Amino acid sequence: MTDTDRPTGSADPAPDITALKDAIAKQGDVVKALKAEKAPKERLQPELDRLLALKEELKQLLLKEAQENEKNKFDRSGLESLLIKRFFYAPSFQIYGGIAGLYDYGPPGCALQNNILSLWRQHFVLEEDMLEVECTNLTPEAVLQTSGHVERFADYMVKDTKTGDIFRADHLVKQVLNQRLEDDTKLRSGAAPKAVKGQPKVEPLTADQRAEYELVLETLDNYQGEDLHQLIRRLDIRAPETGNEVTAPVLFNLMFETQIGPTGQFKGYLRPETAQGHFLNFKRLYEFNTGQMPFASASVGKSFRNEISPRQGLLRVREFTMAEIEHYVDPTKKDHPRFDEVRDVVLPLYSATAQEAAAGPTKLSIGEAVEKGIINNQTLGYFVARIYLFLVRIGVDPARLRMRQHMSNEMAHYACDCWDAEIQSSYGWIECVGCADRSAYDLTAHSNKTGEKLVVREQLPEPIIADKWVLDVNKKNFGPAFKKNAKAVQGYLDSLKEGDQWNEARLLDLLDKLNTGKATITGTDGNEYELTTDLIKIEKRTFKEYVREYIPSVIEPSFGIGRILYQLLEHSYYVREGDEQRGVLKFPACIAPIKALVLPISHSDEFLPFIKDVVTGLRRFNISNKVDDSGSSIGKRYARNDELGTPFAVTVDFQTVQDQTVTLRERDSTKQIREKISTVLEIIKDLVEEKTTWSEVEAKYPTFVQQEL
Amino acid sequence: MTDTDRPTGSADPAPDITALKDAIAKQGDVVKALKAEKAPKERLQPELDRLLALKEELKQLLLKEAQENEKNKFDRSGLESLLIKRFFYAPSFQIYGGIAGLYDYGPPGCALQNNILSLWRQHFVLEEDMLEVECTNLTPEAVLQTSGHVERFADYMVKDTKTGDIFRADHLVKQVLNQRLEDDTKLRSGAAPKAVKGQPKVEPLTADQRAEYELVLETLDNYQGEDLHQLIRRLDIRAPETGNEVTAPVLFNLMFETQIGPTGQFKGYLRPETAQGHFLNFKRLYEFNTGQMPFASASVGKSFRNEISPRQGLLRVREFTMAEIEHYVDPTKKDHPRFDEVRDVVLPLYSATAQEAAAGPTKLSIGEAVEKGIINNQTLGYFVARIYLFLVRIGVDPARLRMRQHMSNEMAHYACDCWDAEIQSSYGWIECVGCADRSAYDLTAHSNKTGEKLVVREQLPEPIIADKWVLDVNKKNFGPAFKKNAKAVQGYLDSLKEGDQWNEARLLDLLDKLNTGKATITGTDGNEYELTTDLIKIEKRTFKEYVREYIPSVIEPSFGIGRILYQLLEHSYYVREGDEQRGVLKFPACIAPIKALVLPISHSDEFLPFIKDVVTGLRRFNISNKVDDSGSSIGKRYARNDELGTPFAVTVDFQTVQDQTVTLRERDSTKQIREKISTVLEIIKDLVEEKTTWSEVEAKYPTFVQQEL
Repeated sequence: MTDTDRPTGSADPAPDITALKDAIAKQGDVVKALKAEKAPKERLQPELDRLLALKEELKQLLLKEAQENEKNKFDRSGLESLLIKRFFYAPSFQIYGGIAGLYDYGPPGCALQNNILSLWRQHFVLEEDMLEVECTNLTPEAVLQTSGHVERFADYMVKDTKTGDIFRADHLVKQVLNQRLEDDTKLRSGAAPKAVKGQPKVEPLTADQRAEYELVLETLDNYQGEDLHQLIRRLDIRAPETGNEVTAPVLFNLMFETQIGPTGQFKGYLRPETAQGHFLNFKRLYEFNTGQMPFASASVGKSFRNEISPRQGLLRVREFTMAEIEHYVDPTKKDHPRFDEVRDVVLPLYSATAQEAAAGPTKLSIGEAVEKGIINNQTLGYFVARIYLFLVRIGVDPARLRMRQHMSNEMAHYACDCWDAEIQSSYGWIECVGCADRSAYDLTAHSNKTGEKLVVREQLPEPIIADKWVLDVNKKNFGPAFKKNAKAVQGYLDSLKEGDQWNEARLLDLLDKLNTGKATITGTDGNEYELTTDLIKIEKRTFKEYVREYIPSVIEPSFGIGRILYQLLEHSYYVREGDEQRGVLKFPACIAPIKALVLPISHSDEFLPFIKDVVTGLRRFNISNKVDDSGSSIGKRYARNDELGTPFAVTVDFQTVQDQTVTLRERDSTKQIREKISTVLEIIKDLVEEKTTWSEVEAKYPTFVQQEL
Repeated sequence: MTDTDRPTGSADPAPDITALKDAIAKQGDVVKALKAEKAPKERLQPELDRLLALKEELKQLLLKEAQENEKNKFDRSGLESLLIKRFFYAPSFQIYGGIAGLYDYGPPGCALQNNILSLWRQHFVLEEDMLEVECTNLTPEAVLQTSGHVERFADYMVKDTKTGDIFRADHLVKQVLNQRLEDDTKLRSGAAPKAVKGQPKVEPLTADQRAEYELVLETLDNYQGEDLHQLIRRLDIRAPETGNEVTAPVLFNLMFETQIGPTGQFKGYLRPETAQGHFLNFKRLYEFNTGQMPFASASVGKSFRNEISPRQGLLRVREFTMAEIEHYVDPTKKDHPRFDEVRDVVLPLYSATAQEAAAGPTKLSIGEAVEKGIINNQTLGYFVARIYLFLVRIGVDPARLRMRQHMSNEMAHYACDCWDAEIQSSYGWIECVGCADRSAYDLTAHSNKTGEKLVVREQLPEPIIADKWVLDVNKKNFGPAFKKNAKAVQGYLDSLKEGDQWNEARLLDLLDKLNTGKATITGTDGNEYELTTDLIKIEKRTFKEYVREYIPSVIEPSFGIGRILYQLLEHSYYVREGDEQRGVLKFPACIAPIKALVLPISHSDEFLPFIKDVVTGLRRFNISNKVDDSGSSIGKRYARNDELGTPFAVTVDFQTVQDQTVTLRERDSTKQIREKISTVLEIIKDLVEEKTTWSEVEAKYPTFVQQEL
């Protein structure tokens, strides 16, 4: 399988570093030329000094950058400890020692995911009347043979020859080479790379080595089978912790296998994607949609991939929630009826061409991108824009979001064009949504395998008259001529068809041979047979067609919900400076697990009726809320809910008892207002429904400054 | 595993049949007694005539009942063809020939399920602040060993000795015996039972045989292993279609097995229930709830059971959606804080005692049931009532719903009391929700296995002072005395503990032996050792405890969503008489897949802006809707949406263009009103939110009679 996430690592270098490197390269050429012409020392020395000065300048700059990076480095461990503490998620089966790549979602993680999925249904399914389906996880082998997964959904793995530890081959190469490059950079900047016990001292790399490693990292997806094996041998890639050699890479299929039923003879897999279920139901869906085109099916469900080495938390796991759309469209009319609604959406597009030229993404309107042919067609463009809008809506930072086109070497076997929504986090740029034009690949494959027509039938406004080459069998002669071999010969004739149409080129080819007197062909039994014009006839005939039949193309936006959720957590996390550094998750209200915290300022029965009023009011508006009447200080309780990303807090205090007012605090500004309960409820409703913003609320109502207890 | 669904088949016999059978039995005794005392013919004959007359009367009654049943029989095939046609659900992978026990949900089925789950979350999770979790389907073997599933989650299967066809043993026995009883009834009523090719002619059964078969059917769950084998041999149970003998029953584990990770050495299963994931996260959940008790976790997800012979559509499948709640409660305080809210709910309870007495269910208030001890405790009673209310709310017919207590022989291995919500359909009474008191079984088992404490720690208002027997090891002597065997002896001492507490009985037992001078014990290595009082000391000491530590009991309401959904479809289905018989699904609006159909009376561009107004308005209220602007007649379009269970239809016609009014049709009455668009939108909103009823709407607005086009 194509490894869809991008190399991790640092961001692009600062522009002055690039300029400096250029200057050093040029100055190097100058010095080299002088040396070549054996220039006198008085001419050579100043150029040499200049080169050394430039190199020193670069060294200082790199050092400074490394220090900056260290300082600005995202505090991942801070976020992770918050996520575990507040049970957003946690490794599954931990009391049994855990299993890599499996995670359970606790209450806030579960609510966050539910809210993301609910917005997803609103944004895509409801908005476009998509047909939602729910198909099974268990999938028989035959289906996944047709889809290509049994043969191709595999990664190469290698073993440590002594310990037997298993590595995913491409990950190992990437890890080792990145380490070597990093060590080399450290050496050049004067720092000492970390020594690994039992392994040779790190030596500086030659310029050729650096260049080769960088090239390999860029093109790693191209190495398969024996090429990959040779690469591992040539670069002496070893298991990082032991320094032992590794075995030759072997393919490992990533699907979980099981037996369906009691006979033990019926092999099945857990689906690796939800898409196949949609395709198998195409005919029913098309009928359900009363034959109208285009239309889309949608599905939310689990998929399973038996990763060789799961890692990076929620980013590479063995069981995950996907939300997939299959949009069926006439391959000759890939325009989209609602394209005008997104035409002016401007977004960062990182085309294959730009990647080849090692340039960055470009900001473009989706309209322009389709007009210029950067994005293949309107429907694909429409979904690229809708995906972008969705991600921004749920709180992904647009500055760390880009749409990247697949290079031809990384495209999945079924895709004819593909754009990924990539989100940047401390793990680098990670693919979170794929948007592929799968063309008619899947429907054609399932149709050929099962003999079931998976087609659209379009009534033509007027019939098309067309000449076609056809082949007729002279039944009277054919049977007697071949007897029990007739089936093998018929099989050959069937192979001249595509679906239920004759392939013109193949027919004309056979006709050419027939015209020489007789044609020698190979039957499906592998034997040769001879065909003559008294057995078959090939001729052109005129047809009148009232219906156009075609297999639709499929545009597939496919969302990895767990990945989106994790990246969103990183984008939402910040640390509030204060007496203690406290983590905050700044979720937009629409996806916050709990919208409003309700709390009495202290333990007192006289607060209870007011707490109940607030809670009942919020529930009436369907606003999720939580009462925190624990004994902790009000500050601690606010802090706990900042960590949960709860945007609003309503506090009942002694003044409430006097005048039925409560305070409303907003999470990020930590500012408060004080109004009657009914007013505060209305304000929260408007905030949650995005009918107003906190700034507007602050402008309208006086700020309240409270003495903390 | 316990087979949780109840025997299918006809309802209880009519009371006059039961009375007649009693009368025949009594009259039989009279005749028998007269014969025994060799009574003269003139005394015997009238009694004999009376017996024969009674038998004839019974025969006529049974015949009449059979005819009635045939007539009233639920038109299942009518419903099923509707469900397939409108793609509520369909067998998965059908174009590949399908796989038994796997179903895909199409758009209306999916929406129906989503709506049921959304109401479930409202009714249970939100209403009671339950902690929702999402755990993985993949589960390592160790977890399911502890839970008992690896050993016990199995059914007996048998094979046709000639064809190799596989049957679930208890299902086969049930099927064969039911068939024999049915054939016998037919014979007695004068009808001829269906002859099966190659099998002997059906002979009437003796009274003893009938009685035995009925007893076996009642107690089938009691037959395991060799008993089951003997039963099959004794009753000559054979494969029904071939008449061949079957093999001895063997256990078949119902879990789907797979390998996790690339080593091939890590066995896992697909979970057979979602419960274990909750239990493993107990500690995190308890902390998340800031240590407050009681509380509950909730989860919605798939479970998997590799059924030997899936059947009855959605009722016995291999992959299904469950919604499970685990409510953790102090085993010494099983009252429920909100019990008063349900105390007066009256519902049909079918207690174990009533089942033993072959009586029917009794209508009781839940308060009374708990007071009388019919239901074990308030918490269990609270959930029994809440489950009942939920099912009625989503549209289950209360007349075909009962809460049935498990008999002791059918209780799962972990349960100490269990009530099922059973719903009646054409398949009989089917368990759709289980509500079990699992006691502390699971948490104790996982805790013992992993050594992780899964307990509640309750601060005591004042410390408890208690005397306890304890054992101390004299370390100075113990090590030297046993040397390398010390570990085996220590292992024995550890076995005297339960958790971290000494078992008093075991200690006193050992003390008795010690008091004789020395105690011979068996170490964990199987060898015998001698203990003396200079090696260990057993004495009573006084402890002061500030914290009470306990493993909570778990009350588990567990919902089979697919089963509920199917039973609901049967309860919702009826056929409207008319020119053509048309199927209707009378879903309550809250769960209807689509709430409102929007349609122009004919194709005309002038209707478009009004259609858009209606749709936009409905979407603003979050009311799912569908435009049907196909060319079909208005009657056909109504009928199509009756089949989908769409409760309301808004029609835009020529009058709309004049005065902005539209018609609003209600599905079941087929009555219409005509009002301004804005009024109609408000009415629909109130109907969907159950703020008004259609009768109220009809009373308030004049009925509109439309000429159909």
